[in-house]
Amino acid sequence: MARLKTIEWIHDTIRIIDQTKLPARLVYSDIDTIEQMYHAIKKLQVRGAPAIGVAAAFGLYIGVRDFSDAGSITGFISHVKKQAAYLAGARPTAVNLFWALNRMSNTVSGCTQRFSILECKEILLKEAKLIFEEDIAAGKAIGKNGFELLKNVTTILTHCNAGGLATAEYGTALAPIYVGKEQGKIFHVYADETRPLLQGSRLTAFELQQAGIPVTIICDNMAASVMAKGKIEAVIVGADRIAANGDTANKIGTYSVALAAKAHKIPFFVAAPLSTFDLTIRSGKQIPIEERDANEVIFGFGTQTGPEGVDVYNPAFDVTPGRLITAIITERGVLYPPFGKSIKAMTS
Amino acid sequence: MARLKTIEWIHDTIRIIDQTKLPARLVYSDIDTIEQMYHAIKKLQVRGAPAIGVAAAFGLYIGVRDFSDAGSITGFISHVKKQAAYLAGARPTAVNLFWALNRMSNTVSGCTQRFSILECKEILLKEAKLIFEEDIAAGKAIGKNGFELLKNVTTILTHCNAGGLATAEYGTALAPIYVGKEQGKIFHVYADETRPLLQGSRLTAFELQQAGIPVTIICDNMAASVMAKGKIEAVIVGADRIAANGDTANKIGTYSVALAAKAHKIPFFVAAPLSTFDLTIRSGKQIPIEERDANEVIFGFGTQTGPEGVDVYNPAFDVTPGRLITAIITERGVLYPPFGKSIKAMTS
Repeated sequence: MARLKTIEWIHDTIRIIDQTKLPARLVYSDIDTIEQMYHAIKKLQVRGAPAIGVAAAFGLYIGVRDFSDAGSITGFISHVKKQAAYLAGARPTAVNLFWALNRMSNTVSGCTQRFSILECKEILLKEAKLIFEEDIAAGKAIGKNGFELLKNVTTILTHCNAGGLATAEYGTALAPIYVGKEQGKIFHVYADETRPLLQGSRLTAFELQQAGIPVTIICDNMAASVMAKGKIEAVIVGADRIAANGDTANKIGTYSVALAAKAHKIPFFVAAPLSTFDLTIRSGKQIPIEERDANEVIFGFGTQTGPEGVDVYNPAFDVTPGRLITAIITERGVLYPPFGKSIKAMTS
Repeated sequence: MARLKTIEWIHDTIRIIDQTKLPARLVYSDIDTIEQMYHAIKKLQVRGAPAIGVAAAFGLYIGVRDFSDAGSITGFISHVKKQAAYLAGARPTAVNLFWALNRMSNTVSGCTQRFSILECKEILLKEAKLIFEEDIAAGKAIGKNGFELLKNVTTILTHCNAGGLATAEYGTALAPIYVGKEQGKIFHVYADETRPLLQGSRLTAFELQQAGIPVTIICDNMAASVMAKGKIEAVIVGADRIAANGDTANKIGTYSVALAAKAHKIPFFVAAPLSTFDLTIRSGKQIPIEERDANEVIFGFGTQTGPEGVDVYNPAFDVTPGRLITAIITERGVLYPPFGKSIKAMTS
């Protein structure tokens, strides 16, 4: 058993895992056209901010590689920008999507008459591969830094999916667990199922099982009880946005886990690349929280589970205050409280 | 809109709400034979310990009312016991089922040659109606005592279903809310959906909606976040078993809510009849916790939501330590800490 390959560049094709089929079936999908990639991103076949960025970079290359090499270089650059704008429409709120497409566009904008169109295409492919490799490297570095913190514990609880399926390979919260496996240390992971969309039971449990790492699914409301039984030695989660003071927005339910960890004196770690820090935001109070559709909660899996017309509150994220966080693990090192100071020092 | 009639004795028939059809459809089922009642209990069409007791009492009467009035009184008594044993097999672990059937059997055992078989049947029907009325009265008394505690708050969070659908009418945790409605006070209830079986979204939200009480469904993992937003003024839950020191076993997830309430300084109330106290048990550590099937978590609603063969931990209950409980509301009055002392005083 091995880690899953969320995205691969193979035989001049992008091979992705179709995550909409998980966990019932592990289906790979080969993507040959930019239109296919647009739909794969739109339909969440590939999801998780870093993974979307990597997929879009390769997708853009595929969308321009058939441009006639006999054309003009300015025509090519304008074609790249047009295709990038098309792909950017797949998910209008995924920041890494724009970031990766901008990076690709800027790269080709640097091409002048010194380069042939063929060479420009090669530069674009190289840039996509670089984005891919940088993502793996950041995950691996987070994994190594996190493993140092976790190597004396065995049972870990995580919430949602901040694993390989959300990135090119290692993930963030799960990266230390994969690095541990490489070094012969086997963790036992308790995975919160993570209502309403069940990323924990559908994705985290699946990828850990595939990698041969023992995993136990629990409902979110069981985490505190499992802690009370002494079964959890550490908690590790990902992050969607971290404010300058360390307050961390992550998948709804994270705050509840952090409170329970505090009550049981269990260390609570956040794992995230530096790109997750938003220093324009002073505290978690300023992080806007997306509210999603009621049907995700009461019509989730083909069955109506709440009464017709009932009011539902369905926030996608919550904010865990920095004071509940033991440390934040980044690719550049580990941040400790007071986070205002340590975050400033590392990012400046 | 009005409170639901979970069980009614109407036109010499038992009318129950078929709870397996909720929340999509409100279907009443008229029960005319003891065999129908056996299946209604077995298939959870009627559920909740107090409601099962009431249903079984009426079911037993229906099972013996056609016994020939020309027979012997000892033949009748033995028929009653045989039918009671049959009905007791419907759910082997529901304590109130045995309690109600024993009470009915003991009542008829007191019949001597002084009574005709017809009179014995009337005594049985009267006893079933008494069990029914006592259950409503206990709920109403809990409701009044609880309403005194809650009348200065408006937003309440509850977990699982300890409402009318679990009893003959008022419920336990929801009883103060129904009493409030009678007195012109409208609460707004946040209902945890209560994974894995969703009694909160399927039953609590449904019965409150039917009664015209504002209700908002949230996933269990959102409770702490809703508290952090200042939206919850009190928490009230039911109980499955309360130890002599006040430690309370209730639906899984209750402990997590209690921890979050403590962290936000929100009062946390337990509502339960005195029959829920188990004084043979000194603390929550001695309460056995039932573990249920993995498929409830990863194959809940016709869709596979976890990978094949994955390990699942699915405890049905957890224990909330007495130190997290503000007060316990019973039909006889309100218990405050130290619970060891106050429980002893009220029950002795």
